Amino acid sequence: MRDLILHINCPDQRGIIAQFTGVLYDHGANVLNLEQHVEPDAKLFFMRIHADLSNMEISEDALHEILMAQVKKMNAKIQFYYPENRQKMAIFVTREAAPLYDLLIKHQSGELPCEIPCILSNHQDLKNTAKQFNIPFHHLPISPKTKPDQENAVREIIKKENIDLLVLARYMQILSSAFVTDYQGRIINIHHGFLPAFKGNNPYRKAWERGVKMIGATAHYVTADLDEGPIIEQDVVSVNHQHSVQEMIQAGRDIERRVLTSAVKAHLQHRIILDGQRTIIFHT
Amino acid sequence: MRDLILHINCPDQRGIIAQFTGVLYDHGANVLNLEQHVEPDAKLFFMRIHADLSNMEISEDALHEILMAQVKKMNAKIQFYYPENRQKMAIFVTREAAPLYDLLIKHQSGELPCEIPCILSNHQDLKNTAKQFNIPFHHLPISPKTKPDQENAVREIIKKENIDLLVLARYMQILSSAFVTDYQGRIINIHHGFLPAFKGNNPYRKAWERGVKMIGATAHYVTADLDEGPIIEQDVVSVNHQHSVQEMIQAGRDIERRVLTSAVKAHLQHRIILDGQRTIIFHT
Amino acid sequence: MRDLILHINCPDQRGIIAQFTGVLYDHGANVLNLEQHVEPDAKLFFMRIHADLSNMEISEDALHEILMAQVKKMNAKIQFYYPENRQKMAIFVTREAAPLYDLLIKHQSGELPCEIPCILSNHQDLKNTAKQFNIPFHHLPISPKTKPDQENAVREIIKKENIDLLVLARYMQILSSAFVTDYQGRIINIHHGFLPAFKGNNPYRKAWERGVKMIGATAHYVTADLDEGPIIEQDVVSVNHQHSVQEMIQAGRDIERRVLTSAVKAHLQHRIILDGQRTIIFHT
Amino acid sequence: MRDLILHINCPDQRGIIAQFTGVLYDHGANVLNLEQHVEPDAKLFFMRIHADLSNMEISEDALHEILMAQVKKMNAKIQFYYPENRQKMAIFVTREAAPLYDLLIKHQSGELPCEIPCILSNHQDLKNTAKQFNIPFHHLPISPKTKPDQENAVREIIKKENIDLLVLARYMQILSSAFVTDYQGRIINIHHGFLPAFKGNNPYRKAWERGVKMIGATAHYVTADLDEGPIIEQDVVSVNHQHSVQEMIQAGRDIERRVLTSAVKAHLQHRIILDGQRTIIFHT
Repeated sequence: MRDLILHINCPDQRGIIAQFTGVLYDHGANVLNLEQHVEPDAKLFFMRIHADLSNMEISEDALHEILMAQVKKMNAKIQFYYPENRQKMAIFVTREAAPLYDLLIKHQSGELPCEIPCILSNHQDLKNTAKQFNIPFHHLPISPKTKPDQENAVREIIKKENIDLLVLARYMQILSSAFVTDYQGRIINIHHGFLPAFKGNNPYRKAWERGVKMIGATAHYVTADLDEGPIIEQDVVSVNHQHSVQEMIQAGRDIERRVLTSAVKAHLQHRIILDGQRTIIFHT
Repeated sequence: MRDLILHINCPDQRGIIAQFTGVLYDHGANVLNLEQHVEPDAKLFFMRIHADLSNMEISEDALHEILMAQVKKMNAKIQFYYPENRQKMAIFVTREAAPLYDLLIKHQSGELPCEIPCILSNHQDLKNTAKQFNIPFHHLPISPKTKPDQENAVREIIKKENIDLLVLARYMQILSSAFVTDYQGRIINIHHGFLPAFKGNNPYRKAWERGVKMIGATAHYVTADLDEGPIIEQDVVSVNHQHSVQEMIQAGRDIERRVLTSAVKAHLQHRIILDGQRTIIFHT
Repeated sequence: MRDLILHINCPDQRGIIAQFTGVLYDHGANVLNLEQHVEPDAKLFFMRIHADLSNMEISEDALHEILMAQVKKMNAKIQFYYPENRQKMAIFVTREAAPLYDLLIKHQSGELPCEIPCILSNHQDLKNTAKQFNIPFHHLPISPKTKPDQENAVREIIKKENIDLLVLARYMQILSSAFVTDYQGRIINIHHGFLPAFKGNNPYRKAWERGVKMIGATAHYVTADLDEGPIIEQDVVSVNHQHSVQEMIQAGRDIERRVLTSAVKAHLQHRIILDGQRTIIFHT
Repeated sequence: MRDLILHINCPDQRGIIAQFTGVLYDHGANVLNLEQHVEPDAKLFFMRIHADLSNMEISEDALHEILMAQVKKMNAKIQFYYPENRQKMAIFVTREAAPLYDLLIKHQSGELPCEIPCILSNHQDLKNTAKQFNIPFHHLPISPKTKPDQENAVREIIKKENIDLLVLARYMQILSSAFVTDYQGRIINIHHGFLPAFKGNNPYRKAWERGVKMIGATAHYVTADLDEGPIIEQDVVSVNHQHSVQEMIQAGRDIERRVLTSAVKAHLQHRIILDGQRTIIFHT
């Protein structure tokens, strides 16, 4: 099988599905799965098509050309993804081990379709965890003075390793606007709070003080506005007056890792389409 | 707008989406939403299309004929549903008020697209609830001797009122096999337990004795095998050693009503396709 | 049985449980249930005791006196509640029917130990709902000019009916600081958002725009700071890109009513103790 | 601090709390936390007391003697646990890595108060996982013929390592009745299904075939009846028609590990009291 995943979005209009699936059918590409979504107020159409090209009657270049003509006709945007090209993911960490472990374990068991060429950290604490899974660990310490240099060192590693996706698995550093802009839509962060509540530092302490009865975690794409990027996944767990801040942190860990890994998996499977500050997440 | 909802299922093959949406597009029917699902092992394809016919260039009869030709070609089955034809729903109850209230309140607020011509019961307890919402209440008491007669009386009401959907909202009577067979796929029951655990009577007591830490409810289509029909929706709520059987019943009530109303809504919106003992439930 | 519920809070110190239960045991009061909680940082102790006085060997006045001596010795605060004195609850509504219905249905089924002498509203929309359950409905319209007068009318009804608890079941008016202060700890509100996110108006629209993947509801005591009072209960429901604002509102309704009714029940059963901005909620 | 945890259960009667806390208070033992539960039908009383003995005025032996006298007077049973005596836990696995990893990670981060002297398996698959965390791995293969010998080898390791708790983290072997009886109340198993539904093998396949909308996991004490032991914790996750059996297995993994680790933690913290086939699980 030779798989192709298409993301198509355009102004809503008649015949989008018929015409795109018609093009594929006419040339022997087999639609395995199709999901679409219309935003009625903005009149925008979004579609993900998963097709099998193994019985195509034309070349992939020819298909590409025909699809681009259709795209132009419909004033659409299109993305082509080939699942057999495995993406490369870099994981950024500081001291918290749980989300890193979860990514490494799920990767090891085959649930995350990617390679992990490196783990980067501003501290040494998780060096042994990287070693447990035989993944190169880059210790890049940071201070107010060295911040720009450190970010340059990060950029070099990303470039050298051809990194597609940057995952901030409780990386306790704020990336510069320039950095975030350069990797737009390719950085996923886990925030240990239920956004938009409890932005910034110490969300568990803030949650304790406010006396909330549920604590949450939020995986989102990183944008220049801290904790304001498009949300991919959220989950919560019940707490009560018996939970100390420390016990909230422990309860939150399970949620954080699950939410982050699930968001990373959706990204790697090309199931996410961005719609401004909102995400469309298809199921298959 | 003149809406049409299609349910199509057939052996999996190439070009199903392209050809059906092509037919609709060619004649001016606008696809508002399309969802499909493939069972890979059984190689079966299922699709729901929601289309707007208001700008069609041919008659509805002509469209019907063209679609039937396509259906025949693909060895498919098709169902046509017109949402503007409001379905008629009969609610069967015994003594428990919560699920009945929920259906009536959600119906009153416009969430359930149907008419409710009657409430049927083997007891008088909920007569006043029916009266609160001005819905005719039929008291049809039942005894081992009168069971066949009672079922005949039920059949007459269903026939007279042109009932499309029978909802058993904690109706504590077992319908005869003949009755169930005659209304196959049109009877929804709420079981106050997490099927397939705790079939039959007194599921809360059984759950208490077994010491479970969650209790659940299950909405399902009724088949001749008690509590074995295709499951539509399930939910659970946590319980602990402090819950008496009575408190489990109270906790379960909220789950039962929510699960039942949600399943009824999915049915009324033509979002459910049966696949043997499994249900495919589309989202929109 | 003659039941007494005690709330006791004091600086943490040795022997609190032993001494209070000792006093009760010594005079024939039988502890049915005891729950306690210590805030380790603030070194505060909180306890709820449910006792049966029916075999007491002294008068209730005598017991009261002995307990007050113990309270004084321990620098404690104590509250006495007698469950057989049913509380009186007033429900405030505007247009949204779901939480009102839930309170009335649960009251009718015996789950809420209180009387409901009146429903108050600034609109007429829910007059019929009140009538369905034979509860007096007071229509008290409000305008910027008449706000103080309206509040005075509300105060008169509360006084006349000896109201213990004011429940704002989607009452879309902000109460004056003076009013809130006068009924401190006796007003419960349901906010249709997951506090502290989405305070104020239109939380569902804000949630849609932010693209959250869960929406919530929060029941809390009302204080002078809008939506800042101590949280009693919260819950959430998952949403996705397919949910319109309207569908979020529908999904939220089930959560709102469940959370509000549950919070009201905890209050009526004297299971809530306030600890500053936090609530301690005992289970039994 | 010198901590003592007491489990006391006895026929319900007056003054249990007062008398036991009185004894402790009289001799300088400070109650940090007390939780109790009464089964009203069976008239049984259960209590967990967490006390600090560091300011005791008598010896621990003397306290023990006084408490035993009280126990005798009340026809009670008592257990003494000293948290500073860390328990020893053996983990049994076969091929599934997720629950093992979770126990090891939570142990490493300090959440599980125990030592892990060994991991036992009938296969070699998880040898490397044990090595990653530097825990001795015992490969004890099993065949119908060698089963008794293998169990004897297991018994020897348990004896040699002074194991207190045996955790079956997806150990795909059925222990003999004799073995289970000998370690009654000291073996915790994770069943990858929502008991009492889907007992035995392949619960995910059974769940898929039945078309359930939620799958679950159950941690329970092992008794001679397979999957019938007292339930400690359960949780579920929603699934739909899009989930293949394989995807159900993946979704279930997160639930299994969370439920097992949480049950193990409750046991290690002496928060579980058995009441026949039911478990009482205290919170602190």
